[in-house]
Amino acid sequence: MYVGVDVGGTNLAAGLVDEQCRIVARAVGKTPKDGSLDDAILALARKAVHAGGARPEEIVRLGIGIPGAVDRTHGVVLHTPNIRMENTPLARQIQEKWPVPVALENDAGCAAAGEYLAGAARGARSAMVVTLGTGVGAGLVVDGALFLGCGGIGPEAGHMVIHPGGRPCNCGRKGCWERYASATGLKQTTREVMLRRKDSLMWQLAQSLEAVSGKTAFQAARMGDEGGREVVEDYLFHLGLGLVNLVNCFHPEILCLGGGVSNEGDDLFLTPLRRMVEEESFNPTENRTRLVKAQLGNDAGIIGAAVPLIRQ
Amino acid sequence: MYVGVDVGGTNLAAGLVDEQCRIVARAVGKTPKDGSLDDAILALARKAVHAGGARPEEIVRLGIGIPGAVDRTHGVVLHTPNIRMENTPLARQIQEKWPVPVALENDAGCAAAGEYLAGAARGARSAMVVTLGTGVGAGLVVDGALFLGCGGIGPEAGHMVIHPGGRPCNCGRKGCWERYASATGLKQTTREVMLRRKDSLMWQLAQSLEAVSGKTAFQAARMGDEGGREVVEDYLFHLGLGLVNLVNCFHPEILCLGGGVSNEGDDLFLTPLRRMVEEESFNPTENRTRLVKAQLGNDAGIIGAAVPLIRQ
Repeated sequence: MYVGVDVGGTNLAAGLVDEQCRIVARAVGKTPKDGSLDDAILALARKAVHAGGARPEEIVRLGIGIPGAVDRTHGVVLHTPNIRMENTPLARQIQEKWPVPVALENDAGCAAAGEYLAGAARGARSAMVVTLGTGVGAGLVVDGALFLGCGGIGPEAGHMVIHPGGRPCNCGRKGCWERYASATGLKQTTREVMLRRKDSLMWQLAQSLEAVSGKTAFQAARMGDEGGREVVEDYLFHLGLGLVNLVNCFHPEILCLGGGVSNEGDDLFLTPLRRMVEEESFNPTENRTRLVKAQLGNDAGIIGAAVPLIRQ
Repeated sequence: MYVGVDVGGTNLAAGLVDEQCRIVARAVGKTPKDGSLDDAILALARKAVHAGGARPEEIVRLGIGIPGAVDRTHGVVLHTPNIRMENTPLARQIQEKWPVPVALENDAGCAAAGEYLAGAARGARSAMVVTLGTGVGAGLVVDGALFLGCGGIGPEAGHMVIHPGGRPCNCGRKGCWERYASATGLKQTTREVMLRRKDSLMWQLAQSLEAVSGKTAFQAARMGDEGGREVVEDYLFHLGLGLVNLVNCFHPEILCLGGGVSNEGDDLFLTPLRRMVEEESFNPTENRTRLVKAQLGNDAGIIGAAVPLIRQ
């Protein structure tokens, strides 16, 4: 049995995972604002183990998905944009209290590993998972192992500039894909169009600019609102543009889209994106990338943390 | 001993390659305009073998670099934009006349393999080679094998859109990186700036728009011409932007720049690009991508064709 813990900026989620990569018990909690992340992770991991009726001795690995860069060899969290954890020896901190093998992995890598092991990309030779959330995360599995570049960094596809001089990004560049394709980007576009279209239905749906969500524009578009349609069209254009860029660079067998926005259904989301990938991607063979919806939601991150795909 | 043949749109180049990945003899010729490419390749390969004082029986492989997509398993050229060779069983055609193992590879993959085996990327765990020519070619070697996606396609990085709605590309998209970063793109930018700046030194250097080369703007910039500087600045901005995008996606240990433009020297070319990669790429570790100039020129394509890096 394995334990996987997904560390988010706000929430923690732990799962007891069996040899068939199924989550058999869970526990959830809040990410502590200051320090003691190791204790919070430990408490949650133990809770999941207990909930699944397993004994601590049965656990062969505790895997942790981190929203940032990790040093896998030394079990150190190098850098996380949203949690204060610069150069934290998290694996050692935990092992001092529970002597179990601890593996750290980047959360986008975990999501890719999870979908590859147990979700939409099961059995694929190469699978990329793109998660549309606060930013855009991307992970790639090739031949059963995570694709990692120097420094052990996976594809930071969100930080691919598609609009030179465009929206400023936290990474320091301007016009990064994630400024347009993430849920955050979608909300920004929604607000921009609302400011231009005072008569849009989106004002009624969201009430205020502050209350705009990633669903506002899609909901308005379904109700026939022109402003909503404009936002959705613009969003899909930028999302699809970056997806085709990724397909042209990596040509994964399967490309899975995850995150809240991916639940918008086929007609207004997956179908137009598939059309873009099919029409615009550069692959003159018959063996082309298939675009699908991720299946496991947040579970992918737990499973991928529990069963890391690192080439030995 | 191996033989490598680099098939270009205009020229053919063959080399006899030894076990240390050195070219010990060469032969060059023209790419035939219609059919009989197999005969032209065979003749040139035999010439290189003869020039090197080797016997045909000593040759353990004939590798061919193709400017397009190949089916490695069946030795078929699937698609080449610049040579008429749709679905051509090139390996079989050649083997009917010379029973030697024949391997086909995409030319960008060959260039990457060559620099990895014997050039600027020797010994790297992962190496990307970006070649600035008529288009922008890219090949990636990871752990001793070419990185290939579905359909056996390598990174088609030139077809990453960086300017939505920008310059039309042969691939059908608009604003592809290669429309700005290739030698062709550089020449287009040069012409555009010349048309706006009738007093530019570039007019004296090139005499006419038709005679503009990839060197015109760089030469003018070195002589203090403002128009030349504007072109070089714009070119480096777009080239660097795409390079940082690639670094963020692949994080290769070494990124080699090849093609004629890469000979422009450090001050006006490599140094500013290195600065962009260092300042803008997203890698919070100390193990970051190094940008270097490719070392082997066209020889990389011959060596990489002769010694293909395909995971068995």
